[in-house]
Amino acid sequence: MNKQQIIEQIKIKKSFLCIGLDVDLEKIPPHLLELEDPIFEFNKQIIDATHQVTVAYKPNTAFYEAYGIKGWKSLEKTITYLNKNYPKIFTIADAKRGDIGNTSTMYAKAFFEDLNFDSVTVAPYMGSDSVEPFLAFADKFTILLALTSNKGGLDFQTLKDKNGTMLYEKVLQESQNWKNSEQLIYVVGATRPEYFQKIRKIVPNNFLLVPGVGAQGGSLQDVCKFGLTKDIGLLVNSSRGIIYASNGTNFVEKARENALKLQKEMESILQKKCLI
Amino acid sequence: MNKQQIIEQIKIKKSFLCIGLDVDLEKIPPHLLELEDPIFEFNKQIIDATHQVTVAYKPNTAFYEAYGIKGWKSLEKTITYLNKNYPKIFTIADAKRGDIGNTSTMYAKAFFEDLNFDSVTVAPYMGSDSVEPFLAFADKFTILLALTSNKGGLDFQTLKDKNGTMLYEKVLQESQNWKNSEQLIYVVGATRPEYFQKIRKIVPNNFLLVPGVGAQGGSLQDVCKFGLTKDIGLLVNSSRGIIYASNGTNFVEKARENALKLQKEMESILQKKCLI
Repeated sequence: MNKQQIIEQIKIKKSFLCIGLDVDLEKIPPHLLELEDPIFEFNKQIIDATHQVTVAYKPNTAFYEAYGIKGWKSLEKTITYLNKNYPKIFTIADAKRGDIGNTSTMYAKAFFEDLNFDSVTVAPYMGSDSVEPFLAFADKFTILLALTSNKGGLDFQTLKDKNGTMLYEKVLQESQNWKNSEQLIYVVGATRPEYFQKIRKIVPNNFLLVPGVGAQGGSLQDVCKFGLTKDIGLLVNSSRGIIYASNGTNFVEKARENALKLQKEMESILQKKCLI
Repeated sequence: MNKQQIIEQIKIKKSFLCIGLDVDLEKIPPHLLELEDPIFEFNKQIIDATHQVTVAYKPNTAFYEAYGIKGWKSLEKTITYLNKNYPKIFTIADAKRGDIGNTSTMYAKAFFEDLNFDSVTVAPYMGSDSVEPFLAFADKFTILLALTSNKGGLDFQTLKDKNGTMLYEKVLQESQNWKNSEQLIYVVGATRPEYFQKIRKIVPNNFLLVPGVGAQGGSLQDVCKFGLTKDIGLLVNSSRGIIYASNGTNFVEKARENALKLQKEMESILQKKCLI
């Protein structure tokens, strides 16, 4: 998938919503637990109910690995189901990988070739040669952690050098010089709205993947104020707020309701900014 | 496994060698490819041939994930084989994980509970609440990236703040204040010998996991000069230099030869420092 195709989908659906598929067996409706593969069944029903208002799905690999091989099978079934039934939807393996060169290539193969995701999240700590192997894959996106939404995101990411440049800014600046940097998307938490203006000055053209709206307390309006570009440039993720809207037999309807609510808010913002 | 048990094994075997099980189907002896599970078979033979001179094995998860569910089965079989046959050997899942709190807990469950590794490598970029969920597991070690051996390791890890403190030093300093920090081990590349003295001042008591000896050009003597402590405090990893010593039918003998060579060098260093 390429950038124009993502933008096109956003304009058609009037939505830049990404739904995080972080499936915890302790949180899903108990009636699903009797099925052979409750994780996949849960994802399938959530996807079928929300695909019209979302442009991306983001399974976080931790929630699958925790169940071992069974979990990996659920992940594989989920991405296969998405690619087969909704091929225009952007898929993100939220895996936060990164290793020395040849090893990153193996991770890239795992997510881009074996599982056929459109993108994967990557941690920047190990530098250029840990990220460029991902960027070497054509029509695939590498989503680099910049400024994360969690409390610990401020432990190191906002450390300043002698010129006052923070670490996450260095990550943005440096990574712009890496090969195929146009295939980079950056993770910026919705809980950090005060940073978006500065971030857009450094990376005016790349998409941002923004988690932290909803359960973590971030505001969509605040994110859009400086985050939106003429090419939209935002994918805003909600996980728990949508998929765990209810854990009863009505979980599908409640998930759709909450996704639709966010989509409507997005539509209104896009209209006000004359982007649709 | 606890620290005393690791030290005891090092003293018994006169070795602080860790062998990296980074199994690439394009590099292993072709005669193994006819078997049902070449990756596991390769690991099993390498382990059986080297377990007397090594105290740790470190499969890098990328090399297993690249082969999908089949690869995860090989990883599961490898750790099960190790735990059953060589329970005193320290096991490291080289996975470089890390995510927001509840998600890191899922990763910790994956590696500490489902697969039953003794330790897992973790990236520090997302800060305290991305690492502490791993540290919450008793008798398990969290191996935090500090100063990595690859070229890109110098992109961000050695950035200085206004006081001249480098990012990796901040990571060492801050993480010492995290809950259960005595269960931390730090990754420091053998290609950075000039940093070991400073590192030992910040973390005098934690073990260091040192990759980069051999194929990447690091020197064992240089690492030991300032890296060794009264409790030894070092696990030095070699992957390619041992497991790919030959790709003929004699690969087991050649791997053993190279492992033994490193062990003898370690034995001589431990004796000179009066540590055994």
